[in-house]
Amino acid sequence: MKTYLDCIPCFMNQALRVGRISTDNENEIKKILDNVGMMIKDIPMSHTPPEIAMAVYSEIRKVTGNSDPFREKKKLNIAKALKLYPRMKEIIEESDDSLLQAVKIAIAGNVIDLGVNKTFDIEEDILKSLHDDLSINDYSKFIEKINQSDKILYIGDNSGEAVFDRLLIEEIDKPVTFVVRERPVINDVTKQEAVEAGVDKAAEIISSGTEAPGNVLYTCTSDFREKFENTEMIISKGQGNYEALSGVDAPIFFLLKAKCYVIAEDIGVKEGSLILMENKRVKNFHGTIRNK
Amino acid sequence: MKTYLDCIPCFMNQALRVGRISTDNENEIKKILDNVGMMIKDIPMSHTPPEIAMAVYSEIRKVTGNSDPFREKKKLNIAKALKLYPRMKEIIEESDDSLLQAVKIAIAGNVIDLGVNKTFDIEEDILKSLHDDLSINDYSKFIEKINQSDKILYIGDNSGEAVFDRLLIEEIDKPVTFVVRERPVINDVTKQEAVEAGVDKAAEIISSGTEAPGNVLYTCTSDFREKFENTEMIISKGQGNYEALSGVDAPIFFLLKAKCYVIAEDIGVKEGSLILMENKRVKNFHGTIRNK
Repeated sequence: MKTYLDCIPCFMNQALRVGRISTDNENEIKKILDNVGMMIKDIPMSHTPPEIAMAVYSEIRKVTGNSDPFREKKKLNIAKALKLYPRMKEIIEESDDSLLQAVKIAIAGNVIDLGVNKTFDIEEDILKSLHDDLSINDYSKFIEKINQSDKILYIGDNSGEAVFDRLLIEEIDKPVTFVVRERPVINDVTKQEAVEAGVDKAAEIISSGTEAPGNVLYTCTSDFREKFENTEMIISKGQGNYEALSGVDAPIFFLLKAKCYVIAEDIGVKEGSLILMENKRVKNFHGTIRNK
Repeated sequence: MKTYLDCIPCFMNQALRVGRISTDNENEIKKILDNVGMMIKDIPMSHTPPEIAMAVYSEIRKVTGNSDPFREKKKLNIAKALKLYPRMKEIIEESDDSLLQAVKIAIAGNVIDLGVNKTFDIEEDILKSLHDDLSINDYSKFIEKINQSDKILYIGDNSGEAVFDRLLIEEIDKPVTFVVRERPVINDVTKQEAVEAGVDKAAEIISSGTEAPGNVLYTCTSDFREKFENTEMIISKGQGNYEALSGVDAPIFFLLKAKCYVIAEDIGVKEGSLILMENKRVKNFHGTIRNK
């Protein structure tokens, strides 16, 4: 997804909000806003938002020296999600279609997003989401693809959400590799949080190598890119990964809650919609992965 | 009021929103965001928000060449407000305390603000506000000051709101001078809109000379500043004038709805509160008007 004009004030909002979580020093926060302000004229609008956000969050780290401001919040969200785990497991097992139920829970888990300017209550939001229909529902293609694939790459998004990803992975009858960010950015899942969420009990965990809040391919290791190219099925969780990967030719299924009106508009759904969407294939596909 | 860190992303939001109303050209809007972004590092945080906003709106005018993007919206809001005028007049006349009722209606009229990032319904919002209590209520001092004064300076804010200002002015038994902005900025009232709102039937209308969305004194004409210094009572409407004048030693009563959380916090009330507040006198007052 390209960067929209609306993303620019949003970067400033994120800089202020995350700046405040990173430091109490008002001068440092002002310095972050100064530096992000000066970036704007050089933002290539054809680039994806996570590419720009990577520079914004790097600036916050540089100015404040705080490399993981969300550490405590991530731990708290994982603990809250783990408390819900047994109840969700029960809901899935008692369901007529346990895979579909697990998909819905995994999408609902995407509500745990500290980069988005909204408050949320994990338990309430997830239980509410279970009654919502998917606005885009490529479930039959999703099952078909699982059946055709030997192994699956599952790209994680937020930390607490990983507990709900684990529930879905446990319903998938194929080997799954769970992909995390290389280092902390907002509350995105890194190896540490994936293990805390217990994902290691259900999947192999690897880092993509990226520092962006979305799986921007050229910022990943060549090792990861090779895996990405050779995988028959990719599950991409959340907004950041949608923004980074929706222009990429690959067998991707996007699972997300469209919490931001810009992303909702890009997809063509209402804000707040739950999405299970197969990536649209680019017509002039040349057999290599590249941006549209 | 000083500029808070929260004002900075808000300036970017305003630049985007007003940019879009001023032009359909996405490149021009991006140029506005670029230029406002580059301003940030030079923003003196001790200055008031309308001083900074003046530069932001000047930038929008320069890039787009559109000097009055809100002209149609202002006309529409005045027409809507004028439609409500007879009913409000009736409510005031039937009230036990018609001045107090007119004050409440004038404050409620401050809901008409196109600079603030909220939608509103003039009729619904005003009728609802009539049932709300004033969160800060210096009404007895307000009456006392009117009785002591020979003439009153009334600094207007938004265009549609001027219809409700007129209703209050009609209840004040002293000569009132209604002060407007020199040129269009957002939907603030200029001479043209004050006349359209019928304020000329109740008061003399003068321009302060300012182009800022708030009565920033050093941007006003010396003629106006002299009037301001020699007036026994000043009624200041709205957020922009509060931001510009709350640090000034003068016999000001602020009438506003605190629509923005930053202003609400600065005043010490909840967002959405209705305010009738006498300016706090500065202790080291030297008899001249200056910023705190």
